[in-house]
Amino acid sequence: MSKSTNFRPELQQQSSINEELDKIEKFFQQLQRPKNLNEIRNRTEKFCQENSDRKIVLITSGGTTVPMEHNTVRFIDNFSAGTRGSASAEYFFDTNQYAIIFLYRHKSLEPFARHFDGLFSNLKYDPNNDRIEVSETIRPKLIQTLTKMKESSNRLLKITFTTLSEYLFILREMTALLRQYGSRVMLYLAAAVSDFYIPPDNMAIHKIHSNGPLRLHFEMVPKILRPLVKFWVPDAFVISFKLETDADILLEKAREALNRYGHKLVIANELNTRKWKVILVTANESELINIDRNSDNPIEIEKLIVTNVVQRHEKFIKNLL
Amino acid sequence: MSKSTNFRPELQQQSSINEELDKIEKFFQQLQRPKNLNEIRNRTEKFCQENSDRKIVLITSGGTTVPMEHNTVRFIDNFSAGTRGSASAEYFFDTNQYAIIFLYRHKSLEPFARHFDGLFSNLKYDPNNDRIEVSETIRPKLIQTLTKMKESSNRLLKITFTTLSEYLFILREMTALLRQYGSRVMLYLAAAVSDFYIPPDNMAIHKIHSNGPLRLHFEMVPKILRPLVKFWVPDAFVISFKLETDADILLEKAREALNRYGHKLVIANELNTRKWKVILVTANESELINIDRNSDNPIEIEKLIVTNVVQRHEKFIKNLL
Repeated sequence: MSKSTNFRPELQQQSSINEELDKIEKFFQQLQRPKNLNEIRNRTEKFCQENSDRKIVLITSGGTTVPMEHNTVRFIDNFSAGTRGSASAEYFFDTNQYAIIFLYRHKSLEPFARHFDGLFSNLKYDPNNDRIEVSETIRPKLIQTLTKMKESSNRLLKITFTTLSEYLFILREMTALLRQYGSRVMLYLAAAVSDFYIPPDNMAIHKIHSNGPLRLHFEMVPKILRPLVKFWVPDAFVISFKLETDADILLEKAREALNRYGHKLVIANELNTRKWKVILVTANESELINIDRNSDNPIEIEKLIVTNVVQRHEKFIKNLL
Repeated sequence: MSKSTNFRPELQQQSSINEELDKIEKFFQQLQRPKNLNEIRNRTEKFCQENSDRKIVLITSGGTTVPMEHNTVRFIDNFSAGTRGSASAEYFFDTNQYAIIFLYRHKSLEPFARHFDGLFSNLKYDPNNDRIEVSETIRPKLIQTLTKMKESSNRLLKITFTTLSEYLFILREMTALLRQYGSRVMLYLAAAVSDFYIPPDNMAIHKIHSNGPLRLHFEMVPKILRPLVKFWVPDAFVISFKLETDADILLEKAREALNRYGHKLVIANELNTRKWKVILVTANESELINIDRNSDNPIEIEKLIVTNVVQRHEKFIKNLL
């Protein structure tokens, strides 16, 4: 009797897992596989092999788009300039311990390059000596950055996405590759990924006409963090981010995510204070990280976040070994 | 009797115009006025005064965003990299006849700078002679462009927008300034402006939760091209763009726009062929412009478009004078 009591929940659990995996598989089947997925896979594989002596961090960054039409003129986007991801990539780089896969939204901020947004307007041509000169305001920082990049460009792999489906396909492909590196792998999922999408079957073929009010119906994107943590990279150190605009529900949402997905750490942040305050939430505790934003020489909060999660990753590796 | 027959339609028309203007006024009232609108106005005014010997073209470029939440995490966007607008701005610049106001989506392509997207990765620092060198692949074009910019940077004013409301407020403010310059002004409205929005009163305050499917209801944005042509800049040469994904309805939509708004020219283009084929549609005729996209040394279609509309503008000015 007790046997059957024990057995049933297992059966139920098993069937619910299969159901969940089926749902995700069906979800992927209806989306269009990116044409360059094999090429991305090959580049990533080569990169990991070349960096076999290092830990690996996969950083996702920037927002995903969700098309409203097959011939896409309009789309839903998630606000994210890519600051968190690109800044974090630099601090991972500075540790000298990690090979960094930077999976980012096309045109969002990139590590190092982000500091030189107005680069073009800072250049001048001097015809007398046939030289292109960089303005003094950015020259010292530019030299410092170029020197750093030159020394270790082989430790940073940059891959872009634009749409939600590109993001999901690439992420799944990468985790399949990273799985073999076990606990040496950290996933730092800072991208702002859409929770909603319009299933391709319900989507308008052509540009939606503007001859009256518009009603749109979005379905929920299945929570892929769950199969990712459980099946795709079961031994990796997975960190997700939770952004809310309402501080009152932030911690609750972070705990909910930990419970649901079973990963190690949620970095919770509020839209308006995210540049100087985050909370690192685990199953048992939470740790506040903040910086003095009124300081004369403020550091970026990503520096503190990265230092913290690198230590956590180190402990995680040791506990497993 | 005939008097009253003639009189009535006029009255009706008058009342329909008032109704329309009221509607637009109400629409603006519910939106948030950009904080930097006065500053933009002052810069534009100064720019026009400094270029009083030239024709003026206001080019709009890139897509507008439409927030889905007051504390905006998600928004609707219109696909547009800003190629049409930024390329056209360069060819207007090359005519030497125009002062150019380039009103563009923040982070979309900019004239001249657009050719050097990967500029940062084309720089190297040589510590031996303390010089930052530009790679030979882009150096000649960069020198050519920097030289051109240096000579006449005072003929190009760049102003950015992001949201639909920013775009509309700035456009209205600018037309109020440009009105005094009469037929010397061309409006080249290449921006991809949203037809739909969520009225602020119906908008979620916080980030929308993802605990179930999402239904969104969008209202139509009033057609501001109509008051713009009739009242804001009644003497200007106004060109609008019509983008469709369905070639079958493109010309019909272009004529419909001309009829509805009463301006001079619609440049009609289809999403998939827009880089090598456009149709210039007026009330009486249409003119096809295309380029040989398989040419070894293809020109940009914007070069032909600009040459064409500059000639039309010239005729327009002479007819009015």
